[in-house]
Amino acid sequence: MDKKIINIGIIGFGVVGAGTVHALQKNSDLIMRRLGAIIKVKKVADLDIETERSISLDAGVLTSNVDDILNDPEISIVVELIGGIEPAKSFILRAMKNGKHVVTANKALLAVHGTELFDAAKRFGQDIMFEASVGGAIPIIRSIKEGLAANRITELVGILNGTANFIMTSMTNDRRSFNKVLKEAQGLGIAETDPTLDIEGWDAAHKIAILASLAFGTPVPFENVYVEGIKNISPEDIEYASNFGYCIKLLAMAGCDGKNVEVRVHPAMIPYDSMLANVNGSFNALSIHNNAADEIFLYGRGAGALPTGSAVAGDIIELARQIMLNIENRVPSLGFQHDSVISLSVKPMEQVYSKYYFRINADDKPGVLSSISGLLSMAGISIESVLQKGRNNKGGVPIVLFTHEAMEKDVRSAILEIEKLKVVNGHVRLIRIMED
Amino acid sequence: MDKKIINIGIIGFGVVGAGTVHALQKNSDLIMRRLGAIIKVKKVADLDIETERSISLDAGVLTSNVDDILNDPEISIVVELIGGIEPAKSFILRAMKNGKHVVTANKALLAVHGTELFDAAKRFGQDIMFEASVGGAIPIIRSIKEGLAANRITELVGILNGTANFIMTSMTNDRRSFNKVLKEAQGLGIAETDPTLDIEGWDAAHKIAILASLAFGTPVPFENVYVEGIKNISPEDIEYASNFGYCIKLLAMAGCDGKNVEVRVHPAMIPYDSMLANVNGSFNALSIHNNAADEIFLYGRGAGALPTGSAVAGDIIELARQIMLNIENRVPSLGFQHDSVISLSVKPMEQVYSKYYFRINADDKPGVLSSISGLLSMAGISIESVLQKGRNNKGGVPIVLFTHEAMEKDVRSAILEIEKLKVVNGHVRLIRIMED
Repeated sequence: MDKKIINIGIIGFGVVGAGTVHALQKNSDLIMRRLGAIIKVKKVADLDIETERSISLDAGVLTSNVDDILNDPEISIVVELIGGIEPAKSFILRAMKNGKHVVTANKALLAVHGTELFDAAKRFGQDIMFEASVGGAIPIIRSIKEGLAANRITELVGILNGTANFIMTSMTNDRRSFNKVLKEAQGLGIAETDPTLDIEGWDAAHKIAILASLAFGTPVPFENVYVEGIKNISPEDIEYASNFGYCIKLLAMAGCDGKNVEVRVHPAMIPYDSMLANVNGSFNALSIHNNAADEIFLYGRGAGALPTGSAVAGDIIELARQIMLNIENRVPSLGFQHDSVISLSVKPMEQVYSKYYFRINADDKPGVLSSISGLLSMAGISIESVLQKGRNNKGGVPIVLFTHEAMEKDVRSAILEIEKLKVVNGHVRLIRIMED
Repeated sequence: MDKKIINIGIIGFGVVGAGTVHALQKNSDLIMRRLGAIIKVKKVADLDIETERSISLDAGVLTSNVDDILNDPEISIVVELIGGIEPAKSFILRAMKNGKHVVTANKALLAVHGTELFDAAKRFGQDIMFEASVGGAIPIIRSIKEGLAANRITELVGILNGTANFIMTSMTNDRRSFNKVLKEAQGLGIAETDPTLDIEGWDAAHKIAILASLAFGTPVPFENVYVEGIKNISPEDIEYASNFGYCIKLLAMAGCDGKNVEVRVHPAMIPYDSMLANVNGSFNALSIHNNAADEIFLYGRGAGALPTGSAVAGDIIELARQIMLNIENRVPSLGFQHDSVISLSVKPMEQVYSKYYFRINADDKPGVLSSISGLLSMAGISIESVLQKGRNNKGGVPIVLFTHEAMEKDVRSAILEIEKLKVVNGHVRLIRIMED
């Protein structure tokens, strides 16, 4: 019996593009058994059609002209894997206008222009799928949109950037400095030459903004996401955290109380025995708290050619099923009906509550702790525990404080006051604490 | 605008039935926003319509006559939650024959009669969904059938029975005996009065048989699943395991080399730092190894009214989407096209390879270790490490051996020989070791 053929076109033949072709080739027999049809990569467009890749394409498949994909009426699914805002966005819009479904792994684009793209998908009667944009191979987006559809999600806590987690893991295991570990990661190809997106938290922020939209059914204006990276974390902080039963991770978090959402990325101390504390190296994970299933925790490879390519291929298979059934928009882009996506306001970071760790370098004089604790008390911040050790090599003494829950605004103004004290040297280090 | 109403009927108003109604009621507004329709529980059938439940139903919804559901043309989804083989199976077949989709959480029925039910679904053009049958709230089945559709799954390793895992966790934390912890679990309502299904491994076996079918696209005759429970595990074994960096869990495992499948449930030692080792108490988890996404690990509540009910509700929502689109069989029951489900043979346990732990109680005499290691060597089993401690309170000495990989058949015959030695007392304790 002749099997139906679903033609796809892939724009971008870089790491993920090659991984997608690889996954489709490697498991073509399996995919045919599951789908009952053949996924055929009809065209792959890339500006560079000269460089040899490890993946071979049939003659005539590789093209430098994107129109060979966007204007081909036989291609029903366009896979955008070039990343960045433009021309990716224009390509996606043109594809949908031309009656093609879209698969993308482009988190920056979705985080910044998701609403526009989802509106266009609805208008053109096409689907845009993006499982690979968050958590690579881990079926996070599908789980939120479908498996957990009957759950009101209250909180997401994730490790969504493998590079930052690799660095934090190495710093923790070897008590080495951020700069040394970053250099090592760059040597291993785990961190890029310009590592800004990863270590400053922007990549994780793109991902948690997308997940917050899906979890709470609201657009999340990306400029309202609080972002803080890991470059100020020192081995000293990791040591103190460890003394108190915590490890430090770059966390991406989102919460919703029904009225406001909170979306933020920053380093945080988490208890050593939590599931997230066991996510090491370049792995990703997400913990989904909700009002029926309780906690769901999903873990796997957040990057890499074949893992990410396999998630892209999963989306292609789902769209192929829809094409064979002649349906679209089975599940809306955000998992909420288009007219049920409600704009919730994003709480400013100043209004967020958390527990805090402070590390203060102070002169070794009587009354220092009393001055500091007095300022905290005046700001309404109560101390849970204090650790004051001997002098460090610069002559001062480090004072480490763990607070009870407090509001960010109060904490920031208290820190300003503490830094004004003559007995306090330099900046107060602050790390938020995330209990389960 | 009037929303469309999808009428469902639930058979069985026990723990999961009540949990399903609870999830649907508690999150009805959210479900409407996601689905664009109202899920209406039109009828709930239970033999007991007298006992008060914590969940209230509208007047006229509760009935003792299952025909009120099976023969109601307005009901398009039948939810079977009575468990057991009959009458559950007949109800499901009648529902499908009457043009209704089915949701069930009935692992025993699916493990034993899955093929017959999936055939019937295909024949009647209906869908049977069963996310809640394995891993409660965790979206495992959806992930295998859809998110990981482009992955060739090679191995599944799971903790799929919360009662057994609660017992193993308590035994590990407190070094208490199986019988004491079982009694405690029964007092807490975590273990049933007759705990056989859970502690003997049958419940986990039902679940892994279902997952193996889904992962490898093959029927798994349930009688070919190897099943061994936890009641022979002693605090002594847990202590030795701990000395060597392992903890003991009741694992459910399935593997496929393309030709044969392996499906088994037994206690196993796993490295302390593996993700599965951190699954404690009544939580469930599954590690999915495959040839593209690498390892995916899914964790959450495997039981409980609301968690399991939320998974049932997720299936109801997916079927409601299909009804609104007027489609069926979007994804086949096993995730493989009906004509692509291929019968693979299940490897007998005797042919399975594993590393092993033996605990032997021997007389404290010269030459004992030499006799034992001689017998192992003759059987082709090589020893990785040995621990011989002082006399135990019964006068003998415990000898603990860890082997390299060996075939089960060889191990069993070597043990028979070892047990024949005059210096060896009682049975040799054997626990398989599962490295990552």
